[in-house]
Amino acid sequence: MTKLYMFEKPLGMRDTLPELFELKRSVKETIQKEVSLWGYETIETPTLEFHETVGQASAILDQQLFKLLDQQGNTLVLRPDMTAPIARIAASTLKDAERPLRLTYDAPVFRAQEREGGRNAEFEQIGVELIGDDSESADAEVISLVTSALERLDLPSYQVAIGHIGFVNAFLQEVLGNETRAAEFRRYLYEKNYVGFQHAAEKLPLSSIDRKRLQGLLRLKGSPDVLNDARRIAESREANEALDQLEKLIGILDDYGVKNHFMIDLNIVMHMSYYTGTVFEAYSEEIGFPIGSGGRYDKLLEQFDYHEPATGFGLRLDRLTEALGKEKKALGKDTCLIFSQERRKEAMAKAKEMRAAGHQVVMQEITGIADVDAYSKQFADVVYYVGSQGNGGVEHE
Amino acid sequence: MTKLYMFEKPLGMRDTLPELFELKRSVKETIQKEVSLWGYETIETPTLEFHETVGQASAILDQQLFKLLDQQGNTLVLRPDMTAPIARIAASTLKDAERPLRLTYDAPVFRAQEREGGRNAEFEQIGVELIGDDSESADAEVISLVTSALERLDLPSYQVAIGHIGFVNAFLQEVLGNETRAAEFRRYLYEKNYVGFQHAAEKLPLSSIDRKRLQGLLRLKGSPDVLNDARRIAESREANEALDQLEKLIGILDDYGVKNHFMIDLNIVMHMSYYTGTVFEAYSEEIGFPIGSGGRYDKLLEQFDYHEPATGFGLRLDRLTEALGKEKKALGKDTCLIFSQERRKEAMAKAKEMRAAGHQVVMQEITGIADVDAYSKQFADVVYYVGSQGNGGVEHE
Repeated sequence: MTKLYMFEKPLGMRDTLPELFELKRSVKETIQKEVSLWGYETIETPTLEFHETVGQASAILDQQLFKLLDQQGNTLVLRPDMTAPIARIAASTLKDAERPLRLTYDAPVFRAQEREGGRNAEFEQIGVELIGDDSESADAEVISLVTSALERLDLPSYQVAIGHIGFVNAFLQEVLGNETRAAEFRRYLYEKNYVGFQHAAEKLPLSSIDRKRLQGLLRLKGSPDVLNDARRIAESREANEALDQLEKLIGILDDYGVKNHFMIDLNIVMHMSYYTGTVFEAYSEEIGFPIGSGGRYDKLLEQFDYHEPATGFGLRLDRLTEALGKEKKALGKDTCLIFSQERRKEAMAKAKEMRAAGHQVVMQEITGIADVDAYSKQFADVVYYVGSQGNGGVEHE
Repeated sequence: MTKLYMFEKPLGMRDTLPELFELKRSVKETIQKEVSLWGYETIETPTLEFHETVGQASAILDQQLFKLLDQQGNTLVLRPDMTAPIARIAASTLKDAERPLRLTYDAPVFRAQEREGGRNAEFEQIGVELIGDDSESADAEVISLVTSALERLDLPSYQVAIGHIGFVNAFLQEVLGNETRAAEFRRYLYEKNYVGFQHAAEKLPLSSIDRKRLQGLLRLKGSPDVLNDARRIAESREANEALDQLEKLIGILDDYGVKNHFMIDLNIVMHMSYYTGTVFEAYSEEIGFPIGSGGRYDKLLEQFDYHEPATGFGLRLDRLTEALGKEKKALGKDTCLIFSQERRKEAMAKAKEMRAAGHQVVMQEITGIADVDAYSKQFADVVYYVGSQGNGGVEHE
């Protein structure tokens, strides 16, 4: 057969070949180890969930969902995130487990792409959820765990930008007076379209004081001092309470000793609409997209008839691997024993001995190789068990 | 909201909670380690593939495929196996890589279920593909690797049953004379419905000699001696060549020293129709289904315009975990440091020190716990950093 798409993959889908896989595996194991040392336990959830429950709770735009019908006529989705499935479990199977719950996961999630723009439609996320603790300590733990895990990866550079969606919502509401306008400006922030934000702010019929306050929002980025600037332009109780929370959080992060790795960014608006409080994004200079993000989502569990505060993060393995993978190393294949039938037993004994000692050994019958020279070049060491035994025995390449 | 399926998962979908996950992880890592020592390299492929290519090459019944349309109008499938995607890569991206290729994977595969019968619609498979070597050495390597991996798992019992689909096809053809009848009997074998096979054999207008030969097929199970019994009832060249291959294979397996762990079963007919030669199924006494299977598929790569012999196996992690998991152990959670805000810095320093030494440490602010006694019970050790520092300091629970 010769088919149109014979070697193609669906839009945004990728293969991972051995070299890149080994880099990804080491990234994954490093993060998993750190997360485990902090006492988080791993769970797995199915790739497919009901659209009506997890699909909707995920708060991903409908056109980004991969949807299908099962044989019973239900609409299913490929999970677009892991937070909503874990909320489902926390509100059902693990309803009676002691709180706070500390859970971790490592799984692919799915977001359909409209066109080939280099974005992955399937990507692996590794993350944690800390459920049942509404204190700033919980937020600080999650952010410190992110920095601690990134530290272990030897990333050339990384930084966590911390914001507060409660502040953004309250501030836009008090300056703009209604939710429709607030949503418009929130959208500019989400898209990081600051020019659009400025233009829209200029066109709006606002008092010159309010216009200045609105434009002042865009300058609330930098050291923790910007919290004082924020207090000068924010008047509502809700906005100031959000700033109080951030101040407490920063105090705790200082104690954790991660001061050099975070900044404040009160312009952060996240993709997922379920966030309610502190939000953050992790960056590495090497790549233009966040390598991870997270925050507080105190209302998500309500969607599963359960009222509980929660906070967490998710790191993107594809982007972390990209940030680390500028110089991919060729895999060092170890030893190959090339044998003929007459001497296979000798070769097997040698392979067994070497593998027991932890060495990687490929065994290959010589008749299975088309070009022995080309084949041998892949290995650091090649040993031949070919020809009659009395005839000199083993030769090294 | 209260929704009909609020806490439900789609048919055949499961959550894996921490205890079971840790068992599964240790099974997985044990197999991965063995496979790596034999020189197999890991690749990953996307969850979604085109139905027209990988979906059809997988040879899974259409009603078992999870299908969906992408935004470009193509039919996609959730991969029902990993062999077909790896064949796609071997015939394209890795077309010019040296042969034989030794590849391994560990990934969930998907098979839709019609009703809730305890069967998983998503299950993780870990396996290998050895591509480009048509010798019995390659088949023997793959079978020895299965037994070697199972050996390391400390399964109470396991056995690999070895058959040959080429023998079954040739023998049924020579006795029954046409493919329609052969297909009927092959189906009984696939379903392991030996009673149905017997009834059908009795009803068929065959000579009494041929009827006996047909019924004799069902007795071709046991020690390698059954190959001699097979020679007595099989006449065609194809059937006898298949038996020659099995004899060679057994000779090699003897040299590998895995004699105690295999038997011959010339009744094996596999789910996947792409197998062409040696086929095998691995069993553990603890559970009724195969824990793994594999075999030679010399025609699959043709579906990707590439002609190359190949052999491989896939083990089912869910069934292996079940076979091993009769006595699940509760996870031993290590240490919890319960602290108040005033003493968080002390607690952080202690946690950092203990984690650096490889200990799992949960840090928990005391205000985040509803019932300190109940919460503490989960841990082997609890240390309190609560109250003023001069006041006696650390208390152990």
